[in-house]
Amino acid sequence: MDDFRFYAPTYFCFGRDSEKNTGELVARFGGHKVLIHYGGGSIKRNGVYGRVIASLEAAAIPYLELGGVLPNPRSGLVYQGIELCRREGIDFVLAVGGGSAIDSAKAIAAGVPYEGDFWDFYANGTPVTQALPMGTVLTIAAAGSEGSPDTVITQEQGMYKRGATGEALRPKFSILNPESTMTLPPFQTACGITDMMAHVCERYFTNTTQVETTDRLCEAVLKAIIEEAPKTIADPADYQARANIMWAGMVAHNNIVGVGRQQDWNSHRIEHELSALYDVAHGAGLSVIMPAWMKHVMRHDVQRFAQFAVRVWGCDMDFAQPERTALEGIARFRAFLTSIGMPATFEQLGARAQDIPAMTEHLFTAEKEPLPGFMQLYRPDVEAILRLALA
Amino acid sequence: MDDFRFYAPTYFCFGRDSEKNTGELVARFGGHKVLIHYGGGSIKRNGVYGRVIASLEAAAIPYLELGGVLPNPRSGLVYQGIELCRREGIDFVLAVGGGSAIDSAKAIAAGVPYEGDFWDFYANGTPVTQALPMGTVLTIAAAGSEGSPDTVITQEQGMYKRGATGEALRPKFSILNPESTMTLPPFQTACGITDMMAHVCERYFTNTTQVETTDRLCEAVLKAIIEEAPKTIADPADYQARANIMWAGMVAHNNIVGVGRQQDWNSHRIEHELSALYDVAHGAGLSVIMPAWMKHVMRHDVQRFAQFAVRVWGCDMDFAQPERTALEGIARFRAFLTSIGMPATFEQLGARAQDIPAMTEHLFTAEKEPLPGFMQLYRPDVEAILRLALA
Repeated sequence: MDDFRFYAPTYFCFGRDSEKNTGELVARFGGHKVLIHYGGGSIKRNGVYGRVIASLEAAAIPYLELGGVLPNPRSGLVYQGIELCRREGIDFVLAVGGGSAIDSAKAIAAGVPYEGDFWDFYANGTPVTQALPMGTVLTIAAAGSEGSPDTVITQEQGMYKRGATGEALRPKFSILNPESTMTLPPFQTACGITDMMAHVCERYFTNTTQVETTDRLCEAVLKAIIEEAPKTIADPADYQARANIMWAGMVAHNNIVGVGRQQDWNSHRIEHELSALYDVAHGAGLSVIMPAWMKHVMRHDVQRFAQFAVRVWGCDMDFAQPERTALEGIARFRAFLTSIGMPATFEQLGARAQDIPAMTEHLFTAEKEPLPGFMQLYRPDVEAILRLALA
Repeated sequence: MDDFRFYAPTYFCFGRDSEKNTGELVARFGGHKVLIHYGGGSIKRNGVYGRVIASLEAAAIPYLELGGVLPNPRSGLVYQGIELCRREGIDFVLAVGGGSAIDSAKAIAAGVPYEGDFWDFYANGTPVTQALPMGTVLTIAAAGSEGSPDTVITQEQGMYKRGATGEALRPKFSILNPESTMTLPPFQTACGITDMMAHVCERYFTNTTQVETTDRLCEAVLKAIIEEAPKTIADPADYQARANIMWAGMVAHNNIVGVGRQQDWNSHRIEHELSALYDVAHGAGLSVIMPAWMKHVMRHDVQRFAQFAVRVWGCDMDFAQPERTALEGIARFRAFLTSIGMPATFEQLGARAQDIPAMTEHLFTAEKEPLPGFMQLYRPDVEAILRLALA
């Protein structure tokens, strides 16, 4: 186990009708005037918006709003939000929605007190140490951004995705009402499930040895998701399954399952190229990329993939040929993703084989070669992974 | 899953030589003058004390100290600490040690700004909402108090143990250096392991249904402990095993594995009578009480105990007779505790059968009958559990 620091001071308010606490929590964490930041109209149709507004008004907290966050949120709206906050003296940013609204809200929160261009944090990887306080009312179980210090934004000048991080970006509070995820279509639900499974896998596959406690925690989250996810697809109104999945999505990414170990974010890095080029849903891209990445890097540590197969997927260990067990685990993961309605191939995504060299090239315009992680990836590795994703 | 709130804003600094950050962390969380609170001389012998002092001095933070915390910490020293803090204008309490030093420090922190008798919080169960900020430098992996809002103190007028809780009692920071646990004797190491397993079990056995995510997290912590604990007994200087156990002890009790579910703290309640009467080590008492409690309450939900047996202890499920599987799980738990050197019977503890009625009576002088939890316990249940612990 490596040395680490872990600080996750987000206040979680979880359960039915929990939006009624929005006003109280904004006030508790220092907000006097709020920017409500959201995507399209779904939060107005499903009643979440109305409950949030009612709570703010009951607490006599004034607010402005900025909607229009797109999936794979864009830099343009962030600039608008920063300007709006500065002009109107807003001191608290409240994201209402999923990972896109939250990530965009984090970018705004970082940008307001920063004298330069907010994109600096994304371009340079400088940790964000100062930001407006922000909170979330989560409506999609997926990104884990409600409990993480991370944000990903797509730069419209060139359409590439980059992440930023920093202690100041942990939400002060997050309100999680599983009922508000019930109106999500099955495809979006499954995209979220895929994203949270990726967040765990990207912590699980590590070169750090003797990390049994976090290994077991990673396996626990995956097993809970494997048990509960199909229920949310079969019956979108299954409150208990929605609740288990919603909390699993937070645990998957606030780093309690990832401390003290090297991590590997290359599936996310490669997927960002797919979603930037084709604007596919992030979870759908991951569904295609993750198993391909696994097949390519498995040789680096067959026993770890065998452990994944046995402990997470319940495979019997083939002690004579552990690589068969390892492959079986990857096959079960892919079959699971297919079973919840996720794509398995480039074609199902609408991606094209002829774009592979350009995607690889584009990835390395901003990332150094090799990509660090479980197995270092050079250009030919990335191309090989993308080709494995074809079929 | 039940609705819940979860707020665990403790900053963890984990790893070798991490005490060097004490001064920086005290300053970060608002301390200008520190009370260092500890037990006997072990922290001076193993070098932890020296490293803490050096860090405070490097940060130019003045300090006073109050040692002498006993295992099962007493109310008398708490009063001394409160008076010392008030007289000297101390604004930060730093516990250096294990759960006893931390629990005593929390009591002092709660008492300083409170006008009444600090014992009110323990007697009435009123949550502590205001306290001096406090931090910990942990040297025993056991109580989980380094990440919890809880404290247990023995009232010297009558020698009974009671707990208090409250958001204000979460440590602002906790420094966890696995190396500082290496000098613990095997018996104390095993006591700590038993305590953390109890903390998980007391969350695991619940009447709340459909809590798969936290079920799996509980099972994960237990499995990690089962894997790593014997290594710490076999080789006290096994850093990696110590590190896994130390983090497991925090995860077991900061409530990330217990949110959204009814819990059952009756093993702790019953054990507190044992340790108050005989002054036995808390973990040793739990080692005797927990399996007895399990045998008694198993009939309340055999399938949950079968799940414990299969998922945690790797038992094969007897589908025709699930109670056989359930009993096998309890037997393996007890055998595991014996294997790490823990007592299994009253006699090994130095406890006496003839004290059972008085212990039961004493327990119900302060607790309402029945005790709430997984299975409600009336006087005859408590007596039956204590009798099951005889052999």
